[in-house]
Amino acid sequence: MYRTHTCGELRFEDSGKEVTLSGWIQRSRDLGGMTFIDLRDRYGITQLVFNMETDPGLCRKARQLGREFVIQAEGLVTERSNKNPNLPTGDIEIVVSRFLVLNPSVTPPFTIENESDGGDELRMKYRFLDLRRNPLKENLLLRHRMAMETRNYFNCHNFVEIETPFLIKSTPEGARDFVVPSRIFPGQFYALPQSPQTFKQLLMVAGYDRYFQIVKCFRDEDLRADRQPEFTQIDCEMSFVHQDDILDTFEGMLKHLFKTIKGIEMDRPFPRLTYEEAMELYGSDKPDLRFEMKISNLTSIIKGKGFPAFETAEYIGGICAPNCSDYSRKQLDALTEFVKKPQIGAKGLIYIKYNTDGSVKSTIDKYYASDAMIQWAEQLQAKPGDLILIIAGLKPVALKALCELRLEMGGRLNLRDKNKFVPLWVTDFPLLEWDEETHRFYAMHHPFTAPKPEEMEKLDIDPAGVHANAYDCVVNGVEIGGGSIRIHDEKLQEKMFRLLGFTEQEAKKQFGFLMQAFLYGAPPHGGIAFGFDRVVSLFAGEESIRDVIAFPKNNAARDVMIDTPSGISEDQLNELSLKIKKDNPAN
Amino acid sequence: MYRTHTCGELRFEDSGKEVTLSGWIQRSRDLGGMTFIDLRDRYGITQLVFNMETDPGLCRKARQLGREFVIQAEGLVTERSNKNPNLPTGDIEIVVSRFLVLNPSVTPPFTIENESDGGDELRMKYRFLDLRRNPLKENLLLRHRMAMETRNYFNCHNFVEIETPFLIKSTPEGARDFVVPSRIFPGQFYALPQSPQTFKQLLMVAGYDRYFQIVKCFRDEDLRADRQPEFTQIDCEMSFVHQDDILDTFEGMLKHLFKTIKGIEMDRPFPRLTYEEAMELYGSDKPDLRFEMKISNLTSIIKGKGFPAFETAEYIGGICAPNCSDYSRKQLDALTEFVKKPQIGAKGLIYIKYNTDGSVKSTIDKYYASDAMIQWAEQLQAKPGDLILIIAGLKPVALKALCELRLEMGGRLNLRDKNKFVPLWVTDFPLLEWDEETHRFYAMHHPFTAPKPEEMEKLDIDPAGVHANAYDCVVNGVEIGGGSIRIHDEKLQEKMFRLLGFTEQEAKKQFGFLMQAFLYGAPPHGGIAFGFDRVVSLFAGEESIRDVIAFPKNNAARDVMIDTPSGISEDQLNELSLKIKKDNPAN
Repeated sequence: MYRTHTCGELRFEDSGKEVTLSGWIQRSRDLGGMTFIDLRDRYGITQLVFNMETDPGLCRKARQLGREFVIQAEGLVTERSNKNPNLPTGDIEIVVSRFLVLNPSVTPPFTIENESDGGDELRMKYRFLDLRRNPLKENLLLRHRMAMETRNYFNCHNFVEIETPFLIKSTPEGARDFVVPSRIFPGQFYALPQSPQTFKQLLMVAGYDRYFQIVKCFRDEDLRADRQPEFTQIDCEMSFVHQDDILDTFEGMLKHLFKTIKGIEMDRPFPRLTYEEAMELYGSDKPDLRFEMKISNLTSIIKGKGFPAFETAEYIGGICAPNCSDYSRKQLDALTEFVKKPQIGAKGLIYIKYNTDGSVKSTIDKYYASDAMIQWAEQLQAKPGDLILIIAGLKPVALKALCELRLEMGGRLNLRDKNKFVPLWVTDFPLLEWDEETHRFYAMHHPFTAPKPEEMEKLDIDPAGVHANAYDCVVNGVEIGGGSIRIHDEKLQEKMFRLLGFTEQEAKKQFGFLMQAFLYGAPPHGGIAFGFDRVVSLFAGEESIRDVIAFPKNNAARDVMIDTPSGISEDQLNELSLKIKKDNPAN
Repeated sequence: MYRTHTCGELRFEDSGKEVTLSGWIQRSRDLGGMTFIDLRDRYGITQLVFNMETDPGLCRKARQLGREFVIQAEGLVTERSNKNPNLPTGDIEIVVSRFLVLNPSVTPPFTIENESDGGDELRMKYRFLDLRRNPLKENLLLRHRMAMETRNYFNCHNFVEIETPFLIKSTPEGARDFVVPSRIFPGQFYALPQSPQTFKQLLMVAGYDRYFQIVKCFRDEDLRADRQPEFTQIDCEMSFVHQDDILDTFEGMLKHLFKTIKGIEMDRPFPRLTYEEAMELYGSDKPDLRFEMKISNLTSIIKGKGFPAFETAEYIGGICAPNCSDYSRKQLDALTEFVKKPQIGAKGLIYIKYNTDGSVKSTIDKYYASDAMIQWAEQLQAKPGDLILIIAGLKPVALKALCELRLEMGGRLNLRDKNKFVPLWVTDFPLLEWDEETHRFYAMHHPFTAPKPEEMEKLDIDPAGVHANAYDCVVNGVEIGGGSIRIHDEKLQEKMFRLLGFTEQEAKKQFGFLMQAFLYGAPPHGGIAFGFDRVVSLFAGEESIRDVIAFPKNNAARDVMIDTPSGISEDQLNELSLKIKKDNPAN
């Protein structure tokens, strides 16, 4: 037997027991006559002690043990004279009588501590060592508990977990597929699923009523910090439901997770904003509602009063930063620089200081009377002492800049508390988006999303004006899930593909199986998918989903630890009837 | 709201309630003045009734509804005059006041009944309809419950579910990989995992101690009835354990599943046989222990007594079929034909009837005295009335034939009861297998399996004679899981790769990351993987794993429903720097 107890288990009550522990050497300290070793495993740390007086031979051997050696130690649980209240095992130590090196370790390339001295690339290369650090370990244990609680919730609500296939069909709609060449059918390919969308709809047609799955999905896209080529989805679908049934069920899921994992009681129902409201009030379809600071449309009251930059603007909007009227010139210049950054794109920033004495001071003093500016301030519900920030321009550009400015101010004012969680639903998304480049409509959610029944007739005359029963779940400004009521009528699905520019033949080739299924009694249905990596990183308080994934890829979709992707043999290529094109102009 | 209740929910106590149900029309019967419709959903069937006298308009409309139409019906829960005790809802019916067709259905290509009239291919093509049938639905619900209970067991035993990556590295060892071309790195590939083996070992190095995952794995092999290109594994690994700790933990898992899912109490510990014992006694490393009928080695007592076929035989073995001494000539001929089939390969079959009167009658009467034959019978613990069946030949061939004959006789004698479950562990597998064709050793389990410590020195002098702490879990003659204690020493792992014919460079290129990880304090560890599809099919009493998979592939690894694999566009090929070879001689 390698151990009688784990390194996180022994307490004062265990004093006097002979025990055996196994684990890694976290650190060791030689204090004259004594040597102390912190022995670590997944469950905690226990102090081992060796005494130069009572057993000099053993103590000398112990002093040769290096960091990260794996040892097995036998000894007596003893009350510590110098207790450590920060450690659950801090009341005791093990007076070691015998130990064995199970495996030595060369010196790790970085320190295995909460804050490591290793850079990103190095820690990715030695991920198996990085995963020994507490923060990553806690994240993976959290992820496990969240997966368990998610499944428990669905199981209790009559959902069935059903595995959908990974070797499916490539469809050019949506993001780029990863493909898998078939050996048996030369020149043919499978694709890895971007989501189980069509299969979960088929499960509804098959009558399964409430489906869920925590499932890997794949997208061959160029990566940003919060994307991975393979990612995990909480994927769900329900039959015989309206939008409210779905929102209600998944509010319940989040409430359950917040309660069981973080001990937080969420109020229900979650706030709901339509897409248009969210854009108007926050300049974003994923607003951070941890703080107010809504955007006000000032166009009608400001425009036409003489300031040139305002006269030509399509839109003028402002936010009110509370208690910031004493911002210095330097601070205001920094905000102006911020909104003028290319990725934000505002032309400039106008401020009005609504001073504590009730006076106003602004960039545009000479164009507007104080009274007028006080009137704008009131429109923004500003109080004396607040700072008004105004941006003008094309409406989408100005709103985006105001959104970014709002988040920046929320950050500066410490209104974005990591330990506060404010969810909302954004609903009523437009069904379609027009793409100027390819001159066609794209589905805003996906081609299976149903138009709102009351707007069905607009499909023929004003498709861009049609909305969908599509919804996103947003927490703290992060979109963690989204879904829609689906089309379950074959004729409507055909029409949708036509609107999206599919020929009848293309639609049939790619999605014929789904349209055929709709002919055999498809129930009304809808669903949702949550980004599990994102939900976990939200709970963990991590910025990047990498920190909640055991073995993530880097930004070039590469696993630097196993050094992959990599070459395969000529034999493998031959079996797959494939040849590599050299000097491919596409790359 | 589409429904107030499901179709499986209403009981006599609900009589008098106004309810709304939604579901599929299973069947309808017009009986003069009344029309009865069975409305079906996932939860059950409820009878709807329409009365020609009280509402002829509605009744006429109802008579136009076809099989598999999806309808919503409102009405009054009423006690049935003609109760159906076979149906949980059989005490009531709904007197319908209003209904709505939610979606019509064309006539299904086969009947949606427990026994369908559709052939295999047709039902695969319309899998979304086949999945409506009760037997498949029950299998998928069973699979869901088994996955939940499996996770509950591991969670309660401190295992952490950790997701391992799907886009990993191709390694030619083992079965053939499915590969995924990289777009960003032209000419390079990922591979889909055949198992998370190396990653779970890295998790042990990282200190996670007890890992599990229910995870999809992939093998590009030519398929047999019980294989799929993508399949699901219960995958586990543990640190600081010996073989017994692992067997104990997973006996516990199976016991938990049998108890919670089937209400069966399994005795523990499970029987254990070494590989050699299993081969000697049952001719198989996965014996069906639902019945005895052990093989006896009769070589030494039979050989050298004159019957020519026995004189040249390396091995002579027999089994005793109880109460079969009255087998007819025809029955015995059939058994002889059976063992002579090419896939079984015996040269012939000798029988000895040990008649109820104590006399014997045999194919080889003229070569042996009755007394001798009675002595053999006693060696086989035969009683009067039993039938002795003897096969001679090369030892592996004769044992294989005896194994098949034993299973055949077990079947004929109804000793292989589907509702009886007898598990065992087969242990001490040989570490290596010699392959005559490629003239090299292959790992019997995989290259990461540790030799038995006490046989370590034999590695250099007699590698074929070395055993491993490798074990299989067998239930009713089906191998449902297998695993081993792993190598955790870098030098030993290097030596193992050398024995398997890897150059140092190949080993480093393919598994360098693992050997490097072993340098940084790898704990002793071992693990196991269960074939989840097989475990579920065992519990479901199904012959094929296809019947417990929602969307399986056919024997050509093809999904005939979505018609995949299929072609991809030139653009996709170009982005991946790939060309299809036409007329590939390899295919």
